Amino acid sequence: MIDMDRIRAETPAAARRAYLHNAGAALMPAPVLAAQVRHLELEAEIGGYAAAEAEAARLDGVYASVAGLLNAAPEEIALVENATVAWQMAFYSLRFRPGDRILTAEAEYAANYVAFLQAAKRTGVEIAVVPSDSTGELDVTALDAMIDDRVKLIAITWVPTNGGLTNPAAAIGRIARLHGIPYLLDACQAVGQMPVDVQAIGCDMLSATGRKFLRGPRGSGFLYVRRGLLERLEPPVIDHFAAPWVSRGEYRLRDDARRFETWENNYAARAGLGAAVDYALEIGLSAIEARCQALSARLRHGLRHVPGAVVRDLGRHPSAIVSFTLEGRPARDFVARAQQAGVVIGASDAASTRIDAERRGLSSVIRASPHYYNTEAEIDRLLELCAGG
Amino acid sequence: MIDMDRIRAETPAAARRAYLHNAGAALMPAPVLAAQVRHLELEAEIGGYAAAEAEAARLDGVYASVAGLLNAAPEEIALVENATVAWQMAFYSLRFRPGDRILTAEAEYAANYVAFLQAAKRTGVEIAVVPSDSTGELDVTALDAMIDDRVKLIAITWVPTNGGLTNPAAAIGRIARLHGIPYLLDACQAVGQMPVDVQAIGCDMLSATGRKFLRGPRGSGFLYVRRGLLERLEPPVIDHFAAPWVSRGEYRLRDDARRFETWENNYAARAGLGAAVDYALEIGLSAIEARCQALSARLRHGLRHVPGAVVRDLGRHPSAIVSFTLEGRPARDFVARAQQAGVVIGASDAASTRIDAERRGLSSVIRASPHYYNTEAEIDRLLELCAGG
Repeated sequence: MIDMDRIRAETPAAARRAYLHNAGAALMPAPVLAAQVRHLELEAEIGGYAAAEAEAARLDGVYASVAGLLNAAPEEIALVENATVAWQMAFYSLRFRPGDRILTAEAEYAANYVAFLQAAKRTGVEIAVVPSDSTGELDVTALDAMIDDRVKLIAITWVPTNGGLTNPAAAIGRIARLHGIPYLLDACQAVGQMPVDVQAIGCDMLSATGRKFLRGPRGSGFLYVRRGLLERLEPPVIDHFAAPWVSRGEYRLRDDARRFETWENNYAARAGLGAAVDYALEIGLSAIEARCQALSARLRHGLRHVPGAVVRDLGRHPSAIVSFTLEGRPARDFVARAQQAGVVIGASDAASTRIDAERRGLSSVIRASPHYYNTEAEIDRLLELCAGG
Repeated sequence: MIDMDRIRAETPAAARRAYLHNAGAALMPAPVLAAQVRHLELEAEIGGYAAAEAEAARLDGVYASVAGLLNAAPEEIALVENATVAWQMAFYSLRFRPGDRILTAEAEYAANYVAFLQAAKRTGVEIAVVPSDSTGELDVTALDAMIDDRVKLIAITWVPTNGGLTNPAAAIGRIARLHGIPYLLDACQAVGQMPVDVQAIGCDMLSATGRKFLRGPRGSGFLYVRRGLLERLEPPVIDHFAAPWVSRGEYRLRDDARRFETWENNYAARAGLGAAVDYALEIGLSAIEARCQALSARLRHGLRHVPGAVVRDLGRHPSAIVSFTLEGRPARDFVARAQQAGVVIGASDAASTRIDAERRGLSSVIRASPHYYNTEAEIDRLLELCAGG
């Protein structure tokens, strides 16, 4: 059971607005804000280097915290500026040749897709989009049928940004493992709203952000790379932290996942990320998932009774991202109207997930993303607004 | 004239220690700390996206501030996580072929040199180190003699990390311009301690950090790229901010230097960087330089009278980084001893600037780096410690 009184008290701003925009950037709980401010104040007092030294144990512990969150080893974790950098460091480490193939999903995130396109232009690798099944999830049978020697990467967004789809990450992992194909999972929207176990999923690389359902700082993210693969990946860019300069003509890549990092970091953000992960682990990801599911189900159920509202979520097991349209009310207009009424939600445009959006003819959807710290009353307030209240 | 009373009051920690480690990470002045804390608190109150929107004018103004600092246009500035990322985005955008040459200096920074080595391994580009003249500066005549059609980049650290050398950046720029060779200047240690004018220097790309002489946050940095070159550079990695996904098979790179950024950023750090730049500009870089020069000259002069002390700075116009050795006292030991006595300085090891360090047989040097907010008394306190006090 989640102690809602404590959670609400530690998220004081939640009393002043219905914050249902956790798929954008969640409200940080007080310990996450405090960890950052404390570190910044320490830096201003004793200097940035001494502060990092003084807090070395705590800062080093962030690797263990993230590893614990993912069921990985600390050596398999890189802490980087954001999920995009995490994903880029993994993706651009892979070497492709003409005729190689990348398999991806229809709702793949724009940031990833433009990187595929750049790689295609540079190397001749081909992008193949696995079709979705009748529910809208990536069709695992179709994926299986597309596997051949040309496939050098499976890269999937687990929970796409534009709605409640949850792709079958573990089923994809079984296929990737069976065929020994590297599997890069974008878990940006998944981490923090549900248990994530890289062993159970069978992914080789996983990228995520701090600011979304983890409730961490903006400008924080991390990358997991399985140990066996790690050693074979040379990062696309390096510095002397990733690869110490050991003799005049030679550098040597670090053995651990920090080969994907740079020497300099924002340690305040790192401290905040650690606090966010510890906070989520203390509550428990299963309890978080159950409450996220209950609140998003309440919203979806309520929307069915709102005239003109159409829930646009896909798949068998929708996430806590609820996407919908309201007849005659453009998404951005409704988001602004809700904002005025103290209800914070977002919108997702076609350019974020172009293939899926074009296939479904959706130029824009309203996106509400409740979290465990939200209340039933906040969901109902949004529903009233949807009904024209 | 610098208003030392105000400056010291806005750097309260300076009253509690002699902080002479500005080449590592300077003490942030109160407005820089406040800008970060204020932004984080706003994020915790209204959410990370709304906070960035509410502060959009101020955050956008950071580009103009940095442009003003460098005598560049805001469209030529990218704000990134650190100086390494800035440098990497510029360097790795360049395309080399076997037999191409990169010209660099003897005291080039390790982070850059390992990137040269990686490029050499991948593309067959050759690294040629321009010799130093009798004073220790890059020998401009030798550089000129090394120019030929194979040279595709001149990449120089302006103020090396391991001592008071200031390389002749503008003289190098004249040669680069004359021959139309791209010129990448690492200004990590220069920015914030002296006026920097990219037009006067004639560099095409310049990278710098926030945390050193600019007194900005850790985890902040920026890149300048001249407009004419910018359009020809495709970043080594992209996301949908750098290159919007305009149709299924196509991305389009942004026109401005933000093509080197990612969508997600640490806006608190960005706000802090802006505050730091504005703070430096308000004091004035010429006044800052004059005081940095006076304090470092006082230190060098004093060290000449300390038995066993040898100043290791090179060049005609040493910067505010004072490097020296003390006979029989290993650098790290002395740094720790000074720390106990309330004097914060650093050390630089051979692995940071391997070619120069090996040439001079210096495994490690003590590094003291005063800034305008330091006092003569603090310099004298360090000198007493050097003398065994």
